[in-house]
Amino acid sequence: MIKITLPDGSVKEFEKATTPMEVAKSISEGLARNVISAKFNETIVETTTPLETDGTLTLFTWKDKEGKTAFWHSTSHIVAQAIEELYPGVKLTIGPAIENGFYYDVDLPNGSISEKDFATIEKKALEIARGKHDYKMRAVSKTDALSFYKEQDNEYKVELIENLEDGTITFCDHDTFTDLCRGGHIPNTGIVKAIKILSVAGAYWRGNENNPQLTRIYGISFPKQKELTEYLALLEEAKKRDHRKLGKELELFTFSQKVGQGLPLWLPKGAALRERLENFLKKAQKKAGYEMVVTPHIGQKELYVTSGHYEKYGEDSFQPIHTPKEGEEFLLKPMNCPHHCEIYNTKPYSYKELPKRFAEFGTVYRYEQSGELHGLTRVRGFTQDDAHIFCTPDQLDEEFKNVIDLSLYVLGSLGFENFTAQVSVRDLDNPEKYIGSVENWEKAEQAIINAAKEKGLNFIVEPGEAAFYGPKLDFMVKDALGRQWQLGTIQVDYNLPERFDLSYKGSDNELHRPVMIHRAPFGSMERFIALLLEHTGGNFPLWLTPEQAIILPVSEKHEKYAEKVLKSLENNEIRALVDSRNETVGKKIREAEMAKIPFMLIVGENDEADNTISVRRHGGEDLGAISIATFTDLVNTEINSTLKTF
Amino acid sequence: MIKITLPDGSVKEFEKATTPMEVAKSISEGLARNVISAKFNETIVETTTPLETDGTLTLFTWKDKEGKTAFWHSTSHIVAQAIEELYPGVKLTIGPAIENGFYYDVDLPNGSISEKDFATIEKKALEIARGKHDYKMRAVSKTDALSFYKEQDNEYKVELIENLEDGTITFCDHDTFTDLCRGGHIPNTGIVKAIKILSVAGAYWRGNENNPQLTRIYGISFPKQKELTEYLALLEEAKKRDHRKLGKELELFTFSQKVGQGLPLWLPKGAALRERLENFLKKAQKKAGYEMVVTPHIGQKELYVTSGHYEKYGEDSFQPIHTPKEGEEFLLKPMNCPHHCEIYNTKPYSYKELPKRFAEFGTVYRYEQSGELHGLTRVRGFTQDDAHIFCTPDQLDEEFKNVIDLSLYVLGSLGFENFTAQVSVRDLDNPEKYIGSVENWEKAEQAIINAAKEKGLNFIVEPGEAAFYGPKLDFMVKDALGRQWQLGTIQVDYNLPERFDLSYKGSDNELHRPVMIHRAPFGSMERFIALLLEHTGGNFPLWLTPEQAIILPVSEKHEKYAEKVLKSLENNEIRALVDSRNETVGKKIREAEMAKIPFMLIVGENDEADNTISVRRHGGEDLGAISIATFTDLVNTEINSTLKTF
Repeated sequence: MIKITLPDGSVKEFEKATTPMEVAKSISEGLARNVISAKFNETIVETTTPLETDGTLTLFTWKDKEGKTAFWHSTSHIVAQAIEELYPGVKLTIGPAIENGFYYDVDLPNGSISEKDFATIEKKALEIARGKHDYKMRAVSKTDALSFYKEQDNEYKVELIENLEDGTITFCDHDTFTDLCRGGHIPNTGIVKAIKILSVAGAYWRGNENNPQLTRIYGISFPKQKELTEYLALLEEAKKRDHRKLGKELELFTFSQKVGQGLPLWLPKGAALRERLENFLKKAQKKAGYEMVVTPHIGQKELYVTSGHYEKYGEDSFQPIHTPKEGEEFLLKPMNCPHHCEIYNTKPYSYKELPKRFAEFGTVYRYEQSGELHGLTRVRGFTQDDAHIFCTPDQLDEEFKNVIDLSLYVLGSLGFENFTAQVSVRDLDNPEKYIGSVENWEKAEQAIINAAKEKGLNFIVEPGEAAFYGPKLDFMVKDALGRQWQLGTIQVDYNLPERFDLSYKGSDNELHRPVMIHRAPFGSMERFIALLLEHTGGNFPLWLTPEQAIILPVSEKHEKYAEKVLKSLENNEIRALVDSRNETVGKKIREAEMAKIPFMLIVGENDEADNTISVRRHGGEDLGAISIATFTDLVNTEINSTLKTF
Repeated sequence: MIKITLPDGSVKEFEKATTPMEVAKSISEGLARNVISAKFNETIVETTTPLETDGTLTLFTWKDKEGKTAFWHSTSHIVAQAIEELYPGVKLTIGPAIENGFYYDVDLPNGSISEKDFATIEKKALEIARGKHDYKMRAVSKTDALSFYKEQDNEYKVELIENLEDGTITFCDHDTFTDLCRGGHIPNTGIVKAIKILSVAGAYWRGNENNPQLTRIYGISFPKQKELTEYLALLEEAKKRDHRKLGKELELFTFSQKVGQGLPLWLPKGAALRERLENFLKKAQKKAGYEMVVTPHIGQKELYVTSGHYEKYGEDSFQPIHTPKEGEEFLLKPMNCPHHCEIYNTKPYSYKELPKRFAEFGTVYRYEQSGELHGLTRVRGFTQDDAHIFCTPDQLDEEFKNVIDLSLYVLGSLGFENFTAQVSVRDLDNPEKYIGSVENWEKAEQAIINAAKEKGLNFIVEPGEAAFYGPKLDFMVKDALGRQWQLGTIQVDYNLPERFDLSYKGSDNELHRPVMIHRAPFGSMERFIALLLEHTGGNFPLWLTPEQAIILPVSEKHEKYAEKVLKSLENNEIRALVDSRNETVGKKIREAEMAKIPFMLIVGENDEADNTISVRRHGGEDLGAISIATFTDLVNTEINSTLKTF
């Protein structure tokens, strides 16, 4: 008999060689129907793998990340079989699951695959899936494995096997198909009900450009056709909301080949939007007792040797800047904290003067490979809404709560209502991994958990996820398309105060080490605006949007009245403009819709006579002819309902 | 006979070998008394040099820059003589005039000079001066010159002479003293009535650190004792107003060895001051139709090859930043214009859409040798209040006037009332030096001169001072100590539009090249704040100053009332704080004086009873007990009298 521990902590006895699926059945038939993958003592296993020892077992369904991984990886076998059947002579290489779906890299010596072939591949793959073939793992000796693929003339698999140790090699069979595979499959192909080939791309064997180029086939699959339909609709919507597309259409930002990739140039409307966001946060930060500072975008290498960043990231960063004389070395700053520590260090502090909260919209530069760059979400230069709080260990609790309040204010005012928090704490089994006293760690972790509880956050605690220098809290935000983003980390840090020898004089007249909190509610202006564009589809909250209203005179003779309306709106602090081009009102409305301007104010004969404006909302709703005062009230009411109080 | 042309264009005939002093006498005895130097055909001559050919003669007095140069250089001979007499065995090297005074570098094999010796040197030098010895130039053969100094064992003068051509070598004699000298002296030593040795410093022979170290003696001299007294008072005042000293005392900025020299860190009060200045300009720029943009602090080398900056400054700049992979090269941006050209180039323009005015508070980095660095006035990283106007040649006139208006608004609102303008135009004799069509140059120069006239500027035109790419206007501002600073250049540019291939579609439907204007009313935030600190001695205009008022409760029991006063002031948008430390009111007042806070609001028994505040102005003026409303009016009146309208 063996003892199996389940995630709820319960322990059950089973006969040796019981499989995960049998364990599932022993719990409930319903569970067994849904189980598609399993983990035994931290190793992913098949649902059919006989369990030989005592251990901890986790069962996964489609709802779990691990379940999806098994599902998509298993589908890659099906698609590989389909391709083998459709493209004789194809050489298979590797086929992993990815974040959304899977890919398979194949060498097609006689031909190529293009979009018009997708339907054929999908059809063939679905036929195979419907056969409900079991996935069966078997051990193979290195000699047999090599000879199997040598016979097929597949140098890729041969190369893979040559790098494996004899005794660890397994094949997976289903139907007539066999693949070199470590395992991690769903029970059978029949569970896959919907398969979509998404795209093809070129990819070098092992990512090395000196190797042959392969064809990478991307796909995704689902246990229900409906889920695929929904996913494709989401993809379509995501394409429409792609921040790179919207950023161009709304003239927010651009890139220049000459300036360099990954370095956004903010156009006037984007710069104004950014400034409005910055001012919004500055105002709240001022209330919360932050002080703004300004620091340079470079620092001597020594600064980053002190902070430890050089040792950790130096080689993968933008390389040092040398001076023409004097042999100095500077680095583009990858973060603002070392500079802020140096500002803290300009004078001595008493405990009565703490906390000090230094904030800066600090632009930092981090090298990313060009292949990794993506619009504003993955860039080489970005501006953090950074701040560092220096406080006594006793103040940590209060400060943490204040930062949560600020983060909630930011998320709420920008229309993110759907989020959870993740608290990352120590791995208690490996205390040697962490710096700082156990007492301080306990205090800090408790402070974070208390703060999360007190603020009513929906949170989970992740042991072992803390950085070596302190615990943290991350907000995990879901956007309008249900995609999850990490936003607004609050990080406790015991390391930098040590490295920069920061101190304050306590009530005992002795010098003590302050604790540091890093925080950035937006994260970076670039990434946040990208996210906001995709979350809102470019329809920004009214308080933030570049232009709140556009005035459309129905003919030239109403232009004067239009200008009068503009003046009134400006006096009421409403951002508006007049479209006085010699175009039809219909065309002007269409273009204002494209430009995502929330209100179109049409002014004609009657409006001028009655001193009104005919208001049309973005999207088409007609609010009729109203006075400017009524419109101003409308705008203010809408703004006040979005902008939270702080 | 020879024909001598005078600066007013008049031509007079004189006998050959007439001296400049004789010419002066022929004009007036008064002039002759004041003439101390002269220039003949672009060469500085003695007042006693016989003029042998026709030519143009300019006579200089103490009031002229050239007069001062001759005066100070001549004094260096006197001081050298004094040192020779006081320190036998001293070896003289060089002794030029500098911006304020002169120095002499000497090798003192047996001893040294320190501050306590200054009075003795001054006394001896004045004794010599009072002898009214004439300065007499004489030609010396190279052989004789060498043997003269070899006899004195002076290897420095020998080295200098060895590098001169025989036939060009002259000595200058006065009293018993002889020096190798090119010339440029006042008539006699008696004109020097006041001499002050200011400091000594080490200096390497010929500035090369491998050469022997010499003693550099700095001094200054005047034709009247009163002028020296005034100068020393000014020096004293300048020391008190040194922005490095005030910046530290007022906690505005700091430097860190670890971050690197020449890279200021802005502390909270300085950052707030800076932001207030930026917001002041932003507001005016918005009214003037500027649009803000944001660009990165680096650019690919290619960007600066295109702009021409790389060829011109590359070697003397911060060296390129390499990426760890991909072999890319980036440069820290030394200016914002190339980035703004790339922004202009993101879309096509019609002439109807021009001018485009892109503004950015853009931080740039320029390498300076560490010896050149000085507080905030000479730094390695600074933020320009930059903007680039792209317009048609026809719009240049109007745009230039608008920029002058903005500059006058900025200077006026910050208390700079004393300034002139310098218009730099082409050298018409060397047309090949300039790029751009003659027609455009004429248009631009005329536009600038018209604008300067129309705006009533006190201006001078300097032919030949224009950059090769366009004419410009500089504001030359005098600060409270009478020192002149260049502030707010407005530069026309035909070069970058060409290099970046900028264009717009004209009314003729053809593509045309726009003209570019660079402008920065502050110049850089760093230099401007340094200047403002020295100009105001830290007593900033009320609208700008970090704290406008400090509330001083006379005892603990009035703290609550003090907080109430603070709230009222904040509601009236007055920046104030409460000093609730357990200190005497006397001490609090002294510290508020040090912190240069304009108003001290003392609140005690009677104030609380009467709902008043007892107002004391910085400097001591007592305004008595007044209501908060009255105080608010006072503050607003004072602000409105400083902040000009725009």
